[in-house]
Amino acid sequence: MSMTIKRKGMLLIISGPSGAGKGTLCKMLLERDKSFEFSCSVTTRAARNGEVDGVDYRFIDEAEFRQMVANDELLEYATVHGHLYGTPKTEVDERLRQCRNVLLDIDSQGAMSVMRKTLDYVSIFIIAPSFEELRRRLEKRNAERPDEIRRRLRNAYAEMRKLDLYQYVVINDDVDCAYEQLSCIVNAEKQRTIRFLPTIEEE
Amino acid sequence: MSMTIKRKGMLLIISGPSGAGKGTLCKMLLERDKSFEFSCSVTTRAARNGEVDGVDYRFIDEAEFRQMVANDELLEYATVHGHLYGTPKTEVDERLRQCRNVLLDIDSQGAMSVMRKTLDYVSIFIIAPSFEELRRRLEKRNAERPDEIRRRLRNAYAEMRKLDLYQYVVINDDVDCAYEQLSCIVNAEKQRTIRFLPTIEEE
Repeated sequence: MSMTIKRKGMLLIISGPSGAGKGTLCKMLLERDKSFEFSCSVTTRAARNGEVDGVDYRFIDEAEFRQMVANDELLEYATVHGHLYGTPKTEVDERLRQCRNVLLDIDSQGAMSVMRKTLDYVSIFIIAPSFEELRRRLEKRNAERPDEIRRRLRNAYAEMRKLDLYQYVVINDDVDCAYEQLSCIVNAEKQRTIRFLPTIEEE
Repeated sequence: MSMTIKRKGMLLIISGPSGAGKGTLCKMLLERDKSFEFSCSVTTRAARNGEVDGVDYRFIDEAEFRQMVANDELLEYATVHGHLYGTPKTEVDERLRQCRNVLLDIDSQGAMSVMRKTLDYVSIFIIAPSFEELRRRLEKRNAERPDEIRRRLRNAYAEMRKLDLYQYVVINDDVDCAYEQLSCIVNAEKQRTIRFLPTIEEE
């Protein structure tokens, strides 16, 4: 008997409230698991310190964003904290066709939208161990004004209610432990029979 | 906010052809992950060298087995390689009710039967890297006669066709790598939102 193993590409959706640490965990996954490629979102918000255009996000203006929507070029888009965010279809479809794994780091509205439209995905919700810790992290980040922090905390409350719409949850208390859990989920999902179909050839 | 995390018990079904190494992997899991308890099957086959009654299996005669079937005391039972095997309901139900994780090491007929009757389970199929390797392992085990080995190999062929009825597959080439994969699947499944429901209490 010989077996030829062919795996389907995995669409991995990672979401969670601002400050839960999903950005850091996504970066770690991309650095350590070379089977994943990042789907770069487009956004109309300004770049934060250290963010690189075309790497973290593609930063575009509202007119260009509206044009992409009109051309049906986005898999999903949503308004988050007053800014537009979207996932270009080109970032996802072609890679999945080539059996590559694609990582989507998106907000919960976007995640819901992709989950409604897509049958085969893996969804993980990253949360902070408590709201106090979430507030501390948002304040430490120091990029947002107090009213922006209050808005993000309010949104985090609302998002927590949608937790059970995701397949997995990772509580990010210690980042290395959280990465360990994330990595386990990803590796387990690679072992799913629906994802890889060994072709048995009798001799 | 405070969160109380309560996890449902997990029913883990591990199956695979004789010689694939599922027995060894199950032992490793029970030794290393104390959240799991082994569901001890009943069987009418003779104990192999080193097998302990009440630990590996409960070895009973056919009359007692038939009585358990008549009393509806078995979750599943099947004839495998000419011997009867069954899972007592008492081994499973009470533990799951107490939110304990239960490990079922059963043959594929039994696994199919449990999967038909149960909604919430995790199923893993363990396979050898090739049929040549499977034959080598069965011969090395040395407990069975040549015609028994031929019968087990024929069954293994048939079982391979049912692979996609399981949720996960682990290829047991090197036992430590295989355990690593098994452990990852188990830990990922513990992170499933359907399995643990955080109760959010607003303050």
